Amino acid sequence: MDLSRLCVHTITTKPWPIEVAMDKYAAAGVAGITVWRQALEGRDISKVGENLRARNLEIVSLCRGGFFPAKTTRGLADAIEDNRLAIREAAALGAPMIVLVCGAVPGQPLAESRKQIADGIAAVLPLAEEHGIRLAIEPLHPVYADDRSAVNTMASANAICDQLDHPLVGIAADAYHIWWDPDLAEQIRITGEKNRLFAFHVCDWMTPTTDLLNDRGLMGEGCIDLKGMRAMVEATGFTGYNEVEIFSNRWWSRDQDDFLQAIKIAFGELFSS
Amino acid sequence: MDLSRLCVHTITTKPWPIEVAMDKYAAAGVAGITVWRQALEGRDISKVGENLRARNLEIVSLCRGGFFPAKTTRGLADAIEDNRLAIREAAALGAPMIVLVCGAVPGQPLAESRKQIADGIAAVLPLAEEHGIRLAIEPLHPVYADDRSAVNTMASANAICDQLDHPLVGIAADAYHIWWDPDLAEQIRITGEKNRLFAFHVCDWMTPTTDLLNDRGLMGEGCIDLKGMRAMVEATGFTGYNEVEIFSNRWWSRDQDDFLQAIKIAFGELFSS
Repeated sequence: MDLSRLCVHTITTKPWPIEVAMDKYAAAGVAGITVWRQALEGRDISKVGENLRARNLEIVSLCRGGFFPAKTTRGLADAIEDNRLAIREAAALGAPMIVLVCGAVPGQPLAESRKQIADGIAAVLPLAEEHGIRLAIEPLHPVYADDRSAVNTMASANAICDQLDHPLVGIAADAYHIWWDPDLAEQIRITGEKNRLFAFHVCDWMTPTTDLLNDRGLMGEGCIDLKGMRAMVEATGFTGYNEVEIFSNRWWSRDQDDFLQAIKIAFGELFSS
Repeated sequence: MDLSRLCVHTITTKPWPIEVAMDKYAAAGVAGITVWRQALEGRDISKVGENLRARNLEIVSLCRGGFFPAKTTRGLADAIEDNRLAIREAAALGAPMIVLVCGAVPGQPLAESRKQIADGIAAVLPLAEEHGIRLAIEPLHPVYADDRSAVNTMASANAICDQLDHPLVGIAADAYHIWWDPDLAEQIRITGEKNRLFAFHVCDWMTPTTDLLNDRGLMGEGCIDLKGMRAMVEATGFTGYNEVEIFSNRWWSRDQDDFLQAIKIAFGELFSS
């Protein structure tokens, strides 16, 4: 089984501390890892980076920055500072990219939040340039438009990228968030054409979905046409990782070794050429 | 308080049978009613229509038809027959319009479901013409794209309307489903321009939303800019009802007289000019 393009997000196996996760992923033949910031709490970040590289795990990205919108000047400034911290953390870890969950404030017009998001990214870009860190805007499913992201379509993410027009600013396309979009094929094509398709995240949409945040499915458990979406992504020339990002109370309650094995099998079935 | 454009959906006060609801709505000064088909089960539909008119309740629409997509020929035919039945029910009731929740089949490509939806509407149009019943496509929030509707944006609904190009086919714009759409203002404008903005449904989006189907908020409880959206709708020349359609386990568990009073107050605060 070719796992050379399989990346796993640490949040996927949340019950494992990163020290366990890195050993398990390496032993399983997983090639890449995206590190969630909470997995780094209390750790020497540079040392974690060294340990990941020592296990031949490619650090794909740090997850996550963003949450730029706020109702106060202080809130906006705090968000920018936190994103600068994330850039320094990514540099210390040796991650070349940060995934941005852009944020939203309930009741604040989404257009205003989008403006704050663009302004926030612009404010941290100089530091990102200094460290050579790419910033990947992740459009979130419209179900999260109230308090998690005002960027809910690839078109909306592309609009911000067009506005900022910077080689370090691109898009993380997550199947869970965008599978329903009638413009998906066209938007993925445009994103690739503009050299800003930075990441591809996979999981599945469960029917019924019993929890708005933590009931994602393993690839193949749900209704998303992942083969079709991967074909769209590959058609752009994308050769990056297929990143498995699953929040699931159901899977987290099970043996994580079994889960990792199930991930490998599902990845093999869906993504091996 | 001007309630002349207030319509309430029978599902909003689900605990009340329609015989109770019509008396309560009339006594409260509600002007319009949209009747859900389950409220008619076991009733003489023509007689219900007479009783509504006797109480000066304007019958705004019958809710709902749709669910056209299916994986089998039999399933497709059954859906068309059920929509023909809905048209006959609307005619018997004296409802000039049917709201369509268009349907989706988990795992079937949404583009295929959209084609089946357009074909299904086309198949029932002759009967709709015969009875003069308007068919209002209701775009559903993308969170329902797996099994309730493959039509998830105003643009997608407008595309089907363009294709069918018939004066009886238009759109029911429901705030809950479309508030997040970056193209909302433009799409509402286009819908009005094409004389196909048939209905405007209101409620609110709760943060957090604890149930995917039945945790809608009363207007003002959530984050939707309803005043702004109503302004967009009115700007098209729309003079129809503002239809209160709330599915809420929380409100259904409370005294429905109190709920109806709360609806009137919320309507007055948000929608009186």
